[in-house]
Amino acid sequence: MIKLAIDIMGGDFAPEEIIKGVNIAIDTYDDLDLTLFGDEDKINLFLRPSPRVHIVHAPEKIAMGEKDPVSLIRRNKNISLVQTLRALREGLVDGAVTAGPTQGVIVASHLIVRRLPGMKRLALCPTLPTFGGKMRLLLDVGANLEIRPEHMVQHAIFATVYYQETQNIARPLVGLINVGTEPGKGREIENEVYDLLSNNPNINFYGNVEPKELLTTECDILLTDGFSGNLVMKSLEGTAKALGLALKEEIAKNIWGKIGYIFMRKNLNAFKNRLSPDNVGGAVIFGVDGIIVKAHGSSNAYAFSRAIHQARLAVKGNVVAIVKEKLAVNDEE
Amino acid sequence: MIKLAIDIMGGDFAPEEIIKGVNIAIDTYDDLDLTLFGDEDKINLFLRPSPRVHIVHAPEKIAMGEKDPVSLIRRNKNISLVQTLRALREGLVDGAVTAGPTQGVIVASHLIVRRLPGMKRLALCPTLPTFGGKMRLLLDVGANLEIRPEHMVQHAIFATVYYQETQNIARPLVGLINVGTEPGKGREIENEVYDLLSNNPNINFYGNVEPKELLTTECDILLTDGFSGNLVMKSLEGTAKALGLALKEEIAKNIWGKIGYIFMRKNLNAFKNRLSPDNVGGAVIFGVDGIIVKAHGSSNAYAFSRAIHQARLAVKGNVVAIVKEKLAVNDEE
Repeated sequence: MIKLAIDIMGGDFAPEEIIKGVNIAIDTYDDLDLTLFGDEDKINLFLRPSPRVHIVHAPEKIAMGEKDPVSLIRRNKNISLVQTLRALREGLVDGAVTAGPTQGVIVASHLIVRRLPGMKRLALCPTLPTFGGKMRLLLDVGANLEIRPEHMVQHAIFATVYYQETQNIARPLVGLINVGTEPGKGREIENEVYDLLSNNPNINFYGNVEPKELLTTECDILLTDGFSGNLVMKSLEGTAKALGLALKEEIAKNIWGKIGYIFMRKNLNAFKNRLSPDNVGGAVIFGVDGIIVKAHGSSNAYAFSRAIHQARLAVKGNVVAIVKEKLAVNDEE
Repeated sequence: MIKLAIDIMGGDFAPEEIIKGVNIAIDTYDDLDLTLFGDEDKINLFLRPSPRVHIVHAPEKIAMGEKDPVSLIRRNKNISLVQTLRALREGLVDGAVTAGPTQGVIVASHLIVRRLPGMKRLALCPTLPTFGGKMRLLLDVGANLEIRPEHMVQHAIFATVYYQETQNIARPLVGLINVGTEPGKGREIENEVYDLLSNNPNINFYGNVEPKELLTTECDILLTDGFSGNLVMKSLEGTAKALGLALKEEIAKNIWGKIGYIFMRKNLNAFKNRLSPDNVGGAVIFGVDGIIVKAHGSSNAYAFSRAIHQARLAVKGNVVAIVKEKLAVNDEE
């Protein structure tokens, strides 16, 4: 059985959509054993009981934009997120899933679950929308705004193992996000990381990738610092949002657009779904001693069930144990 | 008359499309007086003669990806770009337009036209695709990969004057690109720039802007360092490209899409044109003593005529002289 802890209270549509996501996951994967942390009364309102689902009462939650998450996390043991991560820390489960606020989850992961030995910095790693049938990881998107080259290499190793073990790809291709493709482009940090990645036997290094290839590159993993990655991810979101609105506007402008829409409504919905984060699941927190998936704050039931599936795959793939080995070898070299 | 120097040899479709762009501009704006630098024979093939167009023979060009543009620029006086910028330096014209390779144009601007007194760093400033009827500037997109806070403030002043004088907006709103909207977000440089902009009387400061609002923000000007701006711009391009391909694919998937397309073809073309750089013109190089517009490398005739118009507006608006005054006041404060 794959044992996961689920934070029921985090997310814009919690607890209802989160619990319904649990129902979907339990129905879909019979190797899951889930422990839910949240308000017991609310959980019982929506949960379809199953011998593979357990409930722990922890009704408090961390508000979006909480000013002092550190002391809140240390003080308040009744917070569902705190209890979820403690279960992971204590080895009662192998992974944890939450749709709580990103910064709160990162801080709590640090404080409660702790870093892997040899892993100096955490990274937040979402999956980009799939284009050309390809899944692509982007990291870091904001766990560390500033970082040293050798820490970025550790991130690349973690992402490589994660991709290998969850997607069954032998040597995933790692690209370095940069302002040009030629070696020597970028700031000092890009140049140092370029050299380190070129010489690391654990990494299948492609070279520099400009973000104009973000969704078309043959790379599986796109590596950058947390500040840059956050801007890249949000630029993608902003562009997609504006284009979606523009397409709607142009179609609504006249009768021909409206008639055309009647015919191709399904095609346009399929287009819209290409960008939906619902299929992707969530971002994984790399670097802690356990699998933590941070689902999108706006997750509906289906999206949350995908985030549970993502944690399931990472646990099945034994990702954390393999990274530990690689980092130990990496340190010796 | 507004006198501009035009580099005929730069751009993917030079010289034909560039010269045809000159023809369009001369027809459209009767206050333009243009001096063309390039291969005279080729120019005469496509140019519609006009008393307002003059030709200087300068047939060489800087190749895309030239390894040592500095010595090439210093050595070779017959390069059309070099001659174009020399005309500006010598005061024979008020502005210059080129579709040559970006890094070559920036280096040549530095070497030939020189920086404005008080302006420590150049910035490359494109106009983002228009959404919600709003023109937005993004800078720097790559003239400087690393920069000091006070230089970013100079960029903000230049962009403010440029926006004011070319768009007739009294107090354009300046936003700082960042990973969150609250004050205190970002790296040390964002925090320092935030404070400097908050206290500068020449700047109408909005605060932080996340790139997910890139094309919907109420800000007129989006400020960041050259590395971040380059990634943001290219992420926008990459997302738009992938979405355009995906939309085509979904429509072509079945007969309903194809029938719908027959009805709404014009609507979809209008959507496509929203993202076309053709209407925008080019990126302006801020910080040199003169107006230089770098048109998109893939400019067709119409796009290049818009870049000429953009230089025309900046010269008419007396942008460089006004910036000089503001920088002098800024230095005294």
